[in-house]
Parts: sequence; C-alpha cells; structure tokens
Amino acid sequence: MEKIIFKKYEEPELENPILVSGLPGIGNVGKITADYFIEKLKMKKMADIFSEYLPPQVFIFDNKIHLVRDSIYYKKTGKKNDLIVIAGDFQGTTQEGQYELSYEILNYLNKYNISRIYTLGGYSIGKIVEKPKVLGAVSDKKLVKPLEKAGVSFPSGEPSGGIVGSAALILGIGKEMFSIDGACLMGETSGYFADPKGAREIIMVLSKILRSKIDLKDIDEKARQIEEITEKMKEESKNKNSREDLNYFG
Amino acid sequence: MEKIIFKKYEEPELENPILVSGLPGIGNVGKITADYFIEKLKMKKMADIFSEYLPPQVFIFDNKIHLVRDSIYYKKTGKKNDLIVIAGDFQGTTQEGQYELSYEILNYLNKYNISRIYTLGGYSIGKIVEKPKVLGAVSDKKLVKPLEKAGVSFPSGEPSGGIVGSAALILGIGKEMFSIDGACLMGETSGYFADPKGAREIIMVLSKILRSKIDLKDIDEKARQIEEITEKMKEESKNKNSREDLNYFG
Amino acid sequence: MEKIIFKKYEEPELENPILVSGLPGIGNVGKITADYFIEKLKMKKMADIFSEYLPPQVFIFDNKIHLVRDSIYYKKTGKKNDLIVIAGDFQGTTQEGQYELSYEILNYLNKYNISRIYTLGGYSIGKIVEKPKVLGAVSDKKLVKPLEKAGVSFPSGEPSGGIVGSAALILGIGKEMFSIDGACLMGETSGYFADPKGAREIIMVLSKILRSKIDLKDIDEKARQIEEITEKMKEESKNKNSREDLNYFG
Amino acid sequence: MEKIIFKKYEEPELENPILVSGLPGIGNVGKITADYFIEKLKMKKMADIFSEYLPPQVFIFDNKIHLVRDSIYYKKTGKKNDLIVIAGDFQGTTQEGQYELSYEILNYLNKYNISRIYTLGGYSIGKIVEKPKVLGAVSDKKLVKPLEKAGVSFPSGEPSGGIVGSAALILGIGKEMFSIDGACLMGETSGYFADPKGAREIIMVLSKILRSKIDLKDIDEKARQIEEITEKMKEESKNKNSREDLNYFG
Repeated sequence: MEKIIFKKYEEPELENPILVSGLPGIGNVGKITADYFIEKLKMKKMADIFSEYLPPQVFIFDNKIHLVRDSIYYKKTGKKNDLIVIAGDFQGTTQEGQYELSYEILNYLNKYNISRIYTLGGYSIGKIVEKPKVLGAVSDKKLVKPLEKAGVSFPSGEPSGGIVGSAALILGIGKEMFSIDGACLMGETSGYFADPKGAREIIMVLSKILRSKIDLKDIDEKARQIEEITEKMKEESKNKNSREDLNYFG
Repeated sequence: MEKIIFKKYEEPELENPILVSGLPGIGNVGKITADYFIEKLKMKKMADIFSEYLPPQVFIFDNKIHLVRDSIYYKKTGKKNDLIVIAGDFQGTTQEGQYELSYEILNYLNKYNISRIYTLGGYSIGKIVEKPKVLGAVSDKKLVKPLEKAGVSFPSGEPSGGIVGSAALILGIGKEMFSIDGACLMGETSGYFADPKGAREIIMVLSKILRSKIDLKDIDEKARQIEEITEKMKEESKNKNSREDLNYFG
Repeated sequence: MEKIIFKKYEEPELENPILVSGLPGIGNVGKITADYFIEKLKMKKMADIFSEYLPPQVFIFDNKIHLVRDSIYYKKTGKKNDLIVIAGDFQGTTQEGQYELSYEILNYLNKYNISRIYTLGGYSIGKIVEKPKVLGAVSDKKLVKPLEKAGVSFPSGEPSGGIVGSAALILGIGKEMFSIDGACLMGETSGYFADPKGAREIIMVLSKILRSKIDLKDIDEKARQIEEITEKMKEESKNKNSREDLNYFG
Repeated sequence: MEKIIFKKYEEPELENPILVSGLPGIGNVGKITADYFIEKLKMKKMADIFSEYLPPQVFIFDNKIHLVRDSIYYKKTGKKNDLIVIAGDFQGTTQEGQYELSYEILNYLNKYNISRIYTLGGYSIGKIVEKPKVLGAVSDKKLVKPLEKAGVSFPSGEPSGGIVGSAALILGIGKEMFSIDGACLMGETSGYFADPKGAREIIMVLSKILRSKIDLKDIDEKARQIEEITEKMKEESKNKNSREDLNYFG
C-alpha cells in the first residue's frame, strides 16, 4: 500500500487560505482548538488521511468502527483568508512518520497556495495555571509584531528544548521546503489532562488573526467543568493528607 | 526481496465469497476458529504469504522446517456464498507490517469480489467465563440486525479501547479502501491461554451466517479439556492457599 | 544508497556448488566453523556484502579500519561439488534486515545453481557439554538418512522453539523461494562463550558431507584451551564457594 | 518526501578538496572542532541537509524556529587543497539513517573529487585528562606516517571496540564505495560534557594537515572556562565529602 493515502471528498476553490494544524499532543491543546473551530465554523471535510504511520487500530462509536485517521477541513470565510484545518486521531507514531505525514500534507495542500501556517500545541508547565498564556515561535521575524497584538507572548529562550512533533515539522518543513511563513502557538497547560483552558486562549488569539468571531460559550463551559474537577481533586487530596496526618500521629 | 510474497497454488472461481480472517491474537480465539473451519470444511489452500513483516523464524515439525507464514484457503460451498479463510502463524510484528499485510491481502483477493468480511478475535475480560458471549462491531450499521439474529451481542461502548491489529485493519481497510462491509466478531475469553470456549461460540455464529453445519464435537472436546485443566489449577491453588495458611498460622 | 551492496571480486565457474552459511550466533558455533573452512581450504573471496542492515561500525585491526561486512568465499574442490561459504561480522540486526540479507544473498548466488544449502548454528543447552552432538533439521525428508550417516542427530521435537535468524531464513527462503533443499546443522553448546567444541563436531560432519579432509589440529587446540579455561573457572568457583562457606560458618 | 533532502545554496569550483566531518558525538569533540573551523575560516554554506533520519524537531533561537539539519560548508584556501566541512545538529538517529546520511553526503560531494577524508570524534576515557592525545585510525596504512608527524598517536589495538556512527561510516563508506582514503581523528575526552580541550588538540593537528593557521585564542578560552568549572566541581565534591564524613562520624 502507499504509506499515506489521501481519500479526497472535495476540492474547493479557496482564497489565500490560512492553514491551522491541531493534532493530539501535550494537554491535547492543539486538538481541542482545531476540533472547536471545525464544529463552530461548521467546516467541511476535504479529505481523510489514512496511513501506516498511524496505529493499527479502529475506534468504535455506537457499535460502528472508525479506522484511525487525520482529516483536512475547509471553510470559505468570505473574508480575505479562507481557512483550512488539519485535525485527527493521532500524530505519526515514528520519527519517519512525523516527517512523511507533515511533508505529504503540505504537498497535498500546495495547490491551494497556503498564505500562512499556524501550528497549535500545548506548553507544559507542570502545574495548574490560572490564566494560561499563549507562547509563540515564528518562522519569520516579521510575524512577531502582529502576533503580539493578537495576544501572543514571545518570552526569550522558550521553549528551551525547542518544539517536537507535527507542530514543529509542519511549520519547519513549510518554511524550508514550501517557502510558507508561519508560527507555532502554544497554550500553557499543566500537561496532566486534556486541557480546554489553554485551548480557549489559543481560540481567542486565532479568532483575532482570522477576524472570525467564535462563540466561546462551550469551551468556557468545558474549562469550568475541568476547573471543578481539579478543585475537587485538590480538596480530596488535602482531606486525605489531613486524615493521613491524623493516622500518622494518632 | 518484495516485502510481502504471495506463493500462489490455485486460482479458483468463487461465487460471492465471504472472507473470514482469524490470525493469532488474544486467547488465540480467532486462529482456533479459522483453523477449525479449514479442517472441518476440508478447505483448500490458495496461497502462502511469506513476509519480512513476520518473525525471521522456521518452526520444526517432525525434523522438517516450516518457514513461518500466513495462508489463504477457500471452499466452494455450493451455496449462495463461497468461503475464503485467512489463517496463519503470526500477525505482522510492526505497525507498518500490520497495515501492509492487511492491505495487500485484500488487494490480492480483490478480483474475487468479496461480498462480506468477518474478522475474528478474542475479547479479554480478565477472568474465566462460563458461557462466553460473541461481541460485534460493524463497518455498516445495516449488519447489526442480522448479526444479532445469529447470536452476536452489541453492548454499547465496547470494546472501549477500540480494536487493534489485523482484526481491526482488515475490517477498516476493507471498508475505507475496498468498499467492502463487514464485522469483527470477538469471543469473550480470559485471555490467559489459548481458549477454545470463546472460539466455539464464534464457530456457532459463523456457521449460522454461512449456513454451513459445522461438527462441534472436536471443539467441545478441547473446551472440556481446558475446563478440566483450569478446574484442576483452581483446586490446586485453593489447596496451596490452605496449606500456606496452615504454614502461616502453624 | 542501496540497502544491500555486493562488492564483487570474482565470478568463478563452479560445479554443483554446496552453499554453507555460518554467521555469528549462539556460541558463535556457525561462524567458527565457516571461518575454519575458509582458512583450512584456502578459500577465495567472491564478494563483500555491505549493508545498512549491519551495525554502523568499523573495526580497527592494526590501526586500519574495516567496515563491517559479510563475505562470500568459494573453493573449486575438483570433486563432485564445489563449495561456497558465507561468513562475516554480523547477522542483520532487524527482522527486515534478516529477511533482506538472506534473500538477496540467495538471489546473488542463484546463477551458480546451488545444489544444497547447509546453514550452521549453535544449539544452546545451558550447561557445558563433554561431547556435543550435532542436531539437524531439514527442508526435505530425503536428507535425514544421509545426514544421520554423517553423524547428525534428529531428536524428535527439537529445537522446540524452532530456529531463528539467518540459519533459519537462508534455509527456509532457499526452500520456498529458490527451490533448493538443505539442512540446518546445530552444534550443542553451553551458549556462554565462543565455543570451538560444538564447531569441531560440525566440521567433522561437514567434511564427511563434502568428502573433504579437514585438518582438525587447530580447532582441537582451541577446544583444549577453552576446556582449560572452563576447568580453571570451575575450580575457582569451587574454592570460592568453600571459602564462602568457611566465612559463613566461621 | 525524499528521505534526505539537499537544499543547495552554492556549487563552488574546488581544488582537490579535503573533506572534514564533525557531527555531534562523544564529548561533542567533533562538532566543536568543525564549528570552530567554520567560524575561524569564515567558511560559506554550500547546502543544508534535511532528513527524516534526524529528530522531528525545531530549535528556537531568538523566537525564530530552526528546523534541525546538517550542513556542508566550503573554503577556497588558495593552497593545494580546498576545504569542505560537514557540521550540524544531529547524527542520523537510526542505523539505517547513519548509513543513508553518510552515503548520500559522499554521493552529493562525489563530483568534487574529494582527495582525503578526515572524520572527527571523541574518545571517551572516563576521567578528566590534563593533556588529551589525538588518536588515529586510517583507511590506508600510507597515512599513518604523515599523521604521526602532525601529532596523531596510533596506539595498537585502540579503540578496541572499533568506531561507531558517522565518523566510522563516512570513513568506511568513503573507502569501500568511493575509493577515497582518509582517517578518523579522535580527541581524548572524559566524555562527561562538551569538551573543548579534546577539540583543541584536533584543531592543532588539522591545521598542520591543512597548512592553515587557525587562531586558538577562543578555543583556549573555552577550555579554560571548562577547566575552571571542573576544578570548582572537584572542590565542591571534596568539601561535600568532608562534610559528609563529619556528619557520618559526628
């Protein structure tokens, strides 16, 4: 079989499309953001991507199997830039798979003359954060100013280890092999669980960049639920510690 | 060498064949079932499949080597659907191997116009079960009803982790890339050893689907033997625990 | 680069050549045997095999580097069967590498019309053995009798786990894809160190099969040295245990 | 994508170029040396090498991403031999990647008629060394004498485990597949940290071989800084041990 198979559903005509990529990763921040845009903007599917670089697995929803995949969606915005979003079940599971999937997706989309790439991810800070920042890294310095205006932070020397995975490669390969500039937007997250709070902040940044108003009600609700759960866990852990202290001294 | 080599023995003419795949896996339920059909229906071999996705190994039977392989068998049933069965020594040992073997087997069989795919597997429930159920997952909802009639259960949300390996991919790739509908049939099993009891239940389901009467005597005998062994083990473990208790308190 | 590169030195004309393969493995029994034949029969090199399936390594002999490789040697015996021997630094390090190297070596040698394949290996029995046996497994039952005459044992059901690696694949692929019959000859060995004693027994068997008289002096000397070392180790371990006992009880 | 992509910037005309390769490895000795030559000789970049054999990663410098790569630099020296240097972020991360990158780099440079190859590396001796030696291994014995004159040591039987990685393969493949002679130059290093002292000694050897005067001031300064740090660490560890002793006996 071909190592990556694009199953094409539509080939829309798009105006200066911006490419946003949000695949599963740290705190699932990128995936939550991408899925939210797809739902709220009622985006249409252009193509499914099946690949031997993804796990040999089917999910089961309502007794029906779903072969794991990534997918490409689009939205004709009627504004200056149409929108393409990459979302899906997994990143490539090997180093080779990461490169091949990133390159072949860009190659598949090359005919659309992508004007800008934004890859999304989480930035793990190892603790729960009240108000997550959105950190940025660009492939061309001219993008720093406009992103700062949209609310992105550019602390010097972070992330110190660089960026890994599809958020790194789609941006880096886009720059070096397809000459498309862009940025990686990283929402701060504890990294302990799927984190809608970091995603919410990226959604706000992206909606400014895209000049699209996105309804934040649902993501706020999800963030609130997570907050409740973590509060509860903190409380329980405190009580447990107290009890343990009692046991210990009792 | 080619990564997958089909060694062809026969190219029969087949009517609306149903494809059944039972390779080694959890409790070997799929393999036991497939091997039983091959034996009881006196199926003929169409092809051997050698591949670098299988272990670099020969088995030795009666001082003679047997290069590890999977194999394709067929049976002209004289009824509405002829039968093709995939069985063998191993599943592909890597993610890439799983995809390639599943795809290439389907591609090799494509000229036969497969009408339905049934992949077989075990569903591990972590304890010995008196009367194993056969769980199903379909690639088209229209298959749920007829399978329920044949004795298959469709509990909602199970298996929660989806299905992995060749039982997942032959079904999923069959659906997405060859447009063939089908189902995965999973026999409940403890998962602790090769389990003919789970296989027996799938054999009964499959013989209804295929309208082929299969003699159950031998599989019943094997199930009985396994039952005896596990009873003995339980007994011994109980006695041992008693003795240990005695030792402990003695 | 090509994944396997044959660097050709000679293309001799050979009469009904027998192929013997002895690569590093358990107790290095196969390699010791192959190297001994190459030396004692003053065999000539036909080709070097470089490959990315071998470790990324050079050895250093006398300040000069040696890129790791396997090699093919030949000997015009003047008798019924000329001889080809495969020897070298490593087996393929991955499953894919094992298959590719075994297949491509057979493919490279196919024009010589190999009449018989003997792959060599060690059979680990986990203890030092006084008089190692040579166990056999054949790819055609007609070879059992003549090999028994040459001193090979065919215990039923052994090795129970089958055979793995190049000794398995060159024999198995030779049979299934090149229609060449042959046998695997396994010298019993403790498996703890490079073991000339197991190799010695295979040399005797092979020299009968090949009707070539091989001078056993050097291999006998090596076997004697190993015996001395192991005797010494046993002695020391006994003394140490005694001392420890003294310490313990003292 | 192609597994290795050369992004070409210049195709200079070069006279009998000498190829020097210094990629990250033990004590980063090779990389430090190569980077020093590139900086001090103001070498120009010929090509970047991107590859799926490198990690799926971007570094971030001053908020801007840098897709990981190796690079080829050149210098027209005006002397008998022009100079080509390979430097970069990583060696290939797999065995296959090591072979492919080494082979394809040599293949890419083949049109320049490389006259000699020097691969650089560290030789770990497990302790901090006052005055590191430069050890050599050659692919042709005729190179031993001139290298000894340039200050290289050729102890017999070292490194006993051979050499691994790109320093081994560029030399070995250069010899066997491109018929280019050369040597591996290994600077002694503790192996505990990036070690400019071992690099300094290789720089001196290479500048003799290349008849290029290289300013040693900066590397001496770096070596001094490392020395200071290690002295401090030794001091602290001594004090700590004393304190611990006090604690222990106190």
